[in-house]
Amino acid sequence: MIRGFPPSEFEARVARAQSEMTKAGLAALLLTTEPEFRYFTGFLTRFWESPSRPWFLIVPASGRPVAVVPSIGAALLGQSWIDDIRTWAAPDPQDDGVTLLADALREQGGPVGVPSGPESGLRMPLADFARVQSLSGLEFRDDAGIAARLRAIKSDAEIAKISAVCDVAGRAFDRMDEIAGADVPLDRIFRAFQGLLLEEGADYVPYIAGGAGQGGYGCVISPATSRPLAHGDVLMLDTGAVVDGYFCDFDRNFAITTVSDTTHAAHARLIEATQAGFDAARPGARACDVFAAMAAITGGGEEAGRLGHGLGMQLTEGLSLSPRDETVIEAGMVLTLEPGVETGPGRLMVHEENIVIRKDGAAPLTRFAGPAIPVL
Amino acid sequence: MIRGFPPSEFEARVARAQSEMTKAGLAALLLTTEPEFRYFTGFLTRFWESPSRPWFLIVPASGRPVAVVPSIGAALLGQSWIDDIRTWAAPDPQDDGVTLLADALREQGGPVGVPSGPESGLRMPLADFARVQSLSGLEFRDDAGIAARLRAIKSDAEIAKISAVCDVAGRAFDRMDEIAGADVPLDRIFRAFQGLLLEEGADYVPYIAGGAGQGGYGCVISPATSRPLAHGDVLMLDTGAVVDGYFCDFDRNFAITTVSDTTHAAHARLIEATQAGFDAARPGARACDVFAAMAAITGGGEEAGRLGHGLGMQLTEGLSLSPRDETVIEAGMVLTLEPGVETGPGRLMVHEENIVIRKDGAAPLTRFAGPAIPVL
Repeated sequence: MIRGFPPSEFEARVARAQSEMTKAGLAALLLTTEPEFRYFTGFLTRFWESPSRPWFLIVPASGRPVAVVPSIGAALLGQSWIDDIRTWAAPDPQDDGVTLLADALREQGGPVGVPSGPESGLRMPLADFARVQSLSGLEFRDDAGIAARLRAIKSDAEIAKISAVCDVAGRAFDRMDEIAGADVPLDRIFRAFQGLLLEEGADYVPYIAGGAGQGGYGCVISPATSRPLAHGDVLMLDTGAVVDGYFCDFDRNFAITTVSDTTHAAHARLIEATQAGFDAARPGARACDVFAAMAAITGGGEEAGRLGHGLGMQLTEGLSLSPRDETVIEAGMVLTLEPGVETGPGRLMVHEENIVIRKDGAAPLTRFAGPAIPVL
Repeated sequence: MIRGFPPSEFEARVARAQSEMTKAGLAALLLTTEPEFRYFTGFLTRFWESPSRPWFLIVPASGRPVAVVPSIGAALLGQSWIDDIRTWAAPDPQDDGVTLLADALREQGGPVGVPSGPESGLRMPLADFARVQSLSGLEFRDDAGIAARLRAIKSDAEIAKISAVCDVAGRAFDRMDEIAGADVPLDRIFRAFQGLLLEEGADYVPYIAGGAGQGGYGCVISPATSRPLAHGDVLMLDTGAVVDGYFCDFDRNFAITTVSDTTHAAHARLIEATQAGFDAARPGARACDVFAAMAAITGGGEEAGRLGHGLGMQLTEGLSLSPRDETVIEAGMVLTLEPGVETGPGRLMVHEENIVIRKDGAAPLTRFAGPAIPVL
């Protein structure tokens, strides 16, 4: 896998955006979040972890993007394909890029499209956004879903990165017997698993979750406790690791020393449901159809609100495999399949794999788990 | 350090907020971001990494907070002190909590305060926010800085968590000779250092940055390259690791095999500037005064926009040590001191320590580095 992208990748993204902007009657897009900014610039840094400074990208209806950014980012952004970079000494409590941004927007005219639909966010203070609207005198409206729609269809170069990080996490899961087993506390396993992911090549590990308990677990988003694993526990670890700015998001279940018949059957059913989702995930099918294929086998499992989702520059992005989402699946989408089954009162097991949609159907990005739950 | 907080901590936070809300004439606060939600609830999960679902907390002018959250969070939030938890099956492309939130807000009446000032953000789609405003029929305005002001003054229990994670990172830095030296590529060091932080007790490592080069480095926010360290390089590693939801944020410099006189002098000057910042950081001083004390020794160093900042539930939060920030420093604030010096054209060195402000002056949270740069 080659790090970064050639300028042609960004030129193609901007050209697709501009084609859609023309149809939507937008003179410019204003983007403020990390993935949106990175999608059009290639600007990759963990510095977004700091909320103190806003970053702005303007994608005009024609011509190249204009970046309005804190001076601390000028050197790194200067290495990208972006050539119009305007900076200020941020943070500035009096004027944190507001005037500079309003001026830059006025050059492009309006209407200005700002992502406002599902999953979107505005990464700047609301009061400053109101000032930008007022100072620029332009009309601001929804971006018509352009940014999200573009990002949903991955290029081969993007898919290669997701595939690479899936391989990294797959190798880390292969080494679970080095770090997990009876009497090992769950929080120690969480730490050690992040270490394995880094050793196997992850750049960083923004997400790890999991659970452990007799015949299942109660919650899949809780921090790890110091409770040691016990014989008969089912351990689940779920990870969103990153390579070159792209995520994997999948999990694995393990039985601790022994497997009950119930656990064996639940795991086999999860694998069967995953396969049904895989078979249903073809261009032209809807997100709710893939949900239905899996739910028919698990008997529901909607506690989490969905049985999978899009994946890419973020841990979760784009469509939801839920009864409420009728998004049509297209070639180039990368998805997770994430069925769940109840294994007792307040107890469940979940399983997750990552796939890419090709013209003729789905292809796995993870090495799919088999029906037999591995024993540690 | 004890994990979590007793309910009395959250009750005190809510009481302080309500006292300020009365003065500001607000009937409720609407909070949407991870640190704001966690500050009043204790809800700690890495699940916020997924942008797909919004989370809402209402702090009323009297009485207890009301949480309006995706059903996937109900079990974990149910373990907190919050008892009014309303859920929906998120994500829902038709109504992602909008009606539920508008109804809950109407029970409290208006005006509703929403954080809108420096560093704030609204973590929900703009279009949904407009619908909530319209459906509720209430007046929405700025929260008068209440959420940010409360969070800026840390309790002893919060300071103990920051101190604990500073100790973790200090022990990891003590082990740098295990992972770094001549001929080791920088990206391998970044990965291995995250591993050391986890081994020493970090729950996770949301931020790592650094640089390496002859007599200094060019950028402090770039991803690591695969360039091996060379004799005479200066290596800097900066980390924001987390224990129980609280960050450290400090760095260390290392010389690779040899130290030039210039590098030795630059490092000593950084330590001198840090000490000057430490001495100036007292209750009653302003952020710009602490900046001035450090800048008098480094001769500026404003490329990054500031020479330190607040620290706590986020890698950076609150005031900036910059000429533009006149915030008055108070006991209970936790700050970083982060001077920088130019060491050549396009090259710099930076240094960073963490401190807490007490009634009679600053106290270190990190084991302050000495003037001599360590050699690997």
